Amino acid sequence: MSSPRRENGPVNRSKDGHDNRSVTPPGSAATGADFLQLSLGDAPAGGRSDWLARELRLAISDGRLPVGSKLPATRALAADLRVSRGVVTEAYRRLTEDGQVAGRGRAGTVVVAAPLAAPAPLPRDASLPRDALLFRDAPPPTGTALFTAPPGPDVFDALRTAPARIDLSPGLPELAAFPRAAWLRAERAVLRTVPATDLGYGDPRGAPTLRRAVANWLARNRGIRVDPAEVLIVAGTAQALGLIAQVLRRDGVRAIAVEDPGSLGARQHLRHWQLETPPVPVDAEGIRVDALRAAGAPAVMLTPAHQFPTGVVLGGRRRRELLDWAGEGGLIIEDDYDAEHRYDRPPVPALRAMLAEHVCYAGSVSKLLAPALRVGWLLAPPRYRDALVDAKRFADLGNAVLPQHVLAHLMESGELERRLRLLRTRHRRRRDAMIEAIRTHLPGAVVHGAAAGLHLTLTFERRPDSGRADTELADTDLAATALAAGVKVQPLSWHGQRPHPPGLVLGYAASSPAAIAEGVALLGEALRQLR
Amino acid sequence: MSSPRRENGPVNRSKDGHDNRSVTPPGSAATGADFLQLSLGDAPAGGRSDWLARELRLAISDGRLPVGSKLPATRALAADLRVSRGVVTEAYRRLTEDGQVAGRGRAGTVVVAAPLAAPAPLPRDASLPRDALLFRDAPPPTGTALFTAPPGPDVFDALRTAPARIDLSPGLPELAAFPRAAWLRAERAVLRTVPATDLGYGDPRGAPTLRRAVANWLARNRGIRVDPAEVLIVAGTAQALGLIAQVLRRDGVRAIAVEDPGSLGARQHLRHWQLETPPVPVDAEGIRVDALRAAGAPAVMLTPAHQFPTGVVLGGRRRRELLDWAGEGGLIIEDDYDAEHRYDRPPVPALRAMLAEHVCYAGSVSKLLAPALRVGWLLAPPRYRDALVDAKRFADLGNAVLPQHVLAHLMESGELERRLRLLRTRHRRRRDAMIEAIRTHLPGAVVHGAAAGLHLTLTFERRPDSGRADTELADTDLAATALAAGVKVQPLSWHGQRPHPPGLVLGYAASSPAAIAEGVALLGEALRQLR
Repeated sequence: MSSPRRENGPVNRSKDGHDNRSVTPPGSAATGADFLQLSLGDAPAGGRSDWLARELRLAISDGRLPVGSKLPATRALAADLRVSRGVVTEAYRRLTEDGQVAGRGRAGTVVVAAPLAAPAPLPRDASLPRDALLFRDAPPPTGTALFTAPPGPDVFDALRTAPARIDLSPGLPELAAFPRAAWLRAERAVLRTVPATDLGYGDPRGAPTLRRAVANWLARNRGIRVDPAEVLIVAGTAQALGLIAQVLRRDGVRAIAVEDPGSLGARQHLRHWQLETPPVPVDAEGIRVDALRAAGAPAVMLTPAHQFPTGVVLGGRRRRELLDWAGEGGLIIEDDYDAEHRYDRPPVPALRAMLAEHVCYAGSVSKLLAPALRVGWLLAPPRYRDALVDAKRFADLGNAVLPQHVLAHLMESGELERRLRLLRTRHRRRRDAMIEAIRTHLPGAVVHGAAAGLHLTLTFERRPDSGRADTELADTDLAATALAAGVKVQPLSWHGQRPHPPGLVLGYAASSPAAIAEGVALLGEALRQLR
Repeated sequence: MSSPRRENGPVNRSKDGHDNRSVTPPGSAATGADFLQLSLGDAPAGGRSDWLARELRLAISDGRLPVGSKLPATRALAADLRVSRGVVTEAYRRLTEDGQVAGRGRAGTVVVAAPLAAPAPLPRDASLPRDALLFRDAPPPTGTALFTAPPGPDVFDALRTAPARIDLSPGLPELAAFPRAAWLRAERAVLRTVPATDLGYGDPRGAPTLRRAVANWLARNRGIRVDPAEVLIVAGTAQALGLIAQVLRRDGVRAIAVEDPGSLGARQHLRHWQLETPPVPVDAEGIRVDALRAAGAPAVMLTPAHQFPTGVVLGGRRRRELLDWAGEGGLIIEDDYDAEHRYDRPPVPALRAMLAEHVCYAGSVSKLLAPALRVGWLLAPPRYRDALVDAKRFADLGNAVLPQHVLAHLMESGELERRLRLLRTRHRRRRDAMIEAIRTHLPGAVVHGAAAGLHLTLTFERRPDSGRADTELADTDLAATALAAGVKVQPLSWHGQRPHPPGLVLGYAASSPAAIAEGVALLGEALRQLR
């Protein structure tokens, strides 16, 4: 940075003292604190230079201080504003660095450049349409309004930042149980031993130590046998979906079928990458493979172990039908998002364990440890592996190395399995608290998919008073009313592309039994209010 | 996972003892260790179940064990192979989990499914061509061959993993100086204080604490005033380029002009995102703005503080010409990759400091701390901000949170500036060692851009013996010869799209003065060998 220049111009103080301060600019018109309408009352304590620089920039940009005009001397302006001279000097220094003013020796500090006018738009290729998804005209909705508009790409950010006392939105494990001490111990071990060369640019496929640990984890916990060389470390399932979408799109694929109801978030990711997402109905056995055939898409995204959001397990007959479909050239994208969490039933093997040649398999630590870690893994059929590595390389050159080593430590030491057992006990207690509260406060609601996972789904199919179909209820209204009462939930309709009964998707893993009971009671009130 | 079933079939041992073991399958033909040609000599110690499962899968897939045939009883096969019964049980369990065999009670363990035949290709939309960049037919070149083919997308991986005693490839700071103790201290503080809610899904723009720290860092070190709300945290400059490329492409932009010579890596990233990269010549004042105008691209990627690879600083007149070009609607992408590293000259202000409305600015900690951290930042004009946040969201939902907090600690505590001062001293010594060695061992070479950064560029324009132009020399041959002698360097021609004199790009920051001296001496020998 260039050192700040000091202006040496005459002190242009006006004669009529404090109550009418003004400063004479080169063009002889008076400028100064008053002329510029500067009032220290507007300045935040401790940020006065920032404030003054901003005010002066504003004055330059709106013509009150035109190019060629002279700024007040620092000493004078400081006295006018009753601030230390350093505040003014610092503000002038910033404008100097911006190139908007320059010291001119005895002539003082002079405005040399107005900020540029609003930039002209880039010349665009008219054959490429401006992407309506990316270039929005309206700001995203906030508060309960976030349930009245169709959910946009930032709807989960809006829901996350919406204030609410009780958060029953799905997708989170108990974050308070994050193993901070174990993480720090592992980090210490890693920092003691990791070679300096590992701190340079790394293998875009991930650190070998984590790829090995993940292969072992998948063998122990998901029945998957995979060579570590085939494991691609990614920044969570979201990135895995994005990479798959890019590669399939570049391979000529235009559509990936999805479960209906099915994850809104996953669908948004695929659509962002310009893939269509034809909906395929889900029934009590999971995705309907006959309807998948009818949809005609070359690939399908599935949550077979615990369907999101219904919690259905993909049945044996459907698995065989899917196998046939895949054998004819279909590709399965298996999102194994919460399969490690189960309470009342045996584990469900991953499709990848049976169908390696036809399955892109994605998993992550988001539901095991914390989403904020942004670490996941992707297994793919051989024909897509090189392309996926390239996609990962050009996404970010590979995941950060230190957290990969730390995670490998936690996986190989058994720490992660210990945590999973602990979570299982806690989550089960919370789930039971939620079901109990639903029985009490939402007697007409039907509970789905509570044998596993971190969430359950409620549907309101009949009114408890009359037993008639609840055709009047909009679950978005229910979610909005609940949010106004301080409870965060997701409406089932967010996750459907076709019509479904009104419902809610409720996470229980991240809240205490007491908060769950209170939250569900408030939901009951909200429902009564709406009816 | 389902629990392993135990087969109870009869032990079908043959009568003629050890030397001719065989087992009778349901179809009455003999199968067993011999029939399957199993030999324990092939099995790695400690991995016998793995080996046996693999062998059995092979036998099923090539028809030696057809569907319907029965596996030998575990006890029998264990005796045949002289392994413990557990080894065989475990191998069978894996095949059961794969769905290839099933326990049939008294009938034993039976093959129920052959592995699927090679999968049929996905139905593709013929209007979308298969992407030649992503779907390659040939494996990437290795060894010195990596310099004979045009550099592909994995060329930097190939160079990184190529064995060499001395690594003078550019782009790395001294990794041995990574502040491990300070990092661990900061991590401990973060783990003690970070709220559990911060471990969930976060703001895709980055953690507020790091965005604030980066804004302060840029103000102190790069003369940039920016509101933390405008800082987007990204996974390094590579990701920043990718996000910009995606957004511009979706806004209808087809080409981004680049400096020539200019970074091969950056160019590969832009091309991956389907942007053309018309080359614009660089002279002693930096990019030629007249040629940029002639190129007609709506945007340009620049390294103004220390042009890569020539090390030229963008001159004052060129800055003003660029300002005019941008004022007419051009967009500048400023890659401020190593601007903090300077030795013999004052800092060069970032273009972003003067031209906020027209500059996408990218920086990272890769050259300050370590590339393996994968943290950087992106500032963009307001009209692109929403779209860039969306692009980041759909790339990976935002950077991992813990390392962001740790880095914010290091930035706000002054640790990062302390490290920068330390690095500056060490790097300067290493640079001086390299220049000294070049004078001794490569007397005809011209050194470029050594006043700053982590690398310098050599060109071989005239033969030292005759003074004539060195038209015969190919710098890729020189790099290949050097690699064979144990020294890793990058040929200048990798970084040019138009013809340039033969040259090398040499990093000095990551090697000791002794290694540098030896490496340059070996380069001198390689050059003499080639001439």
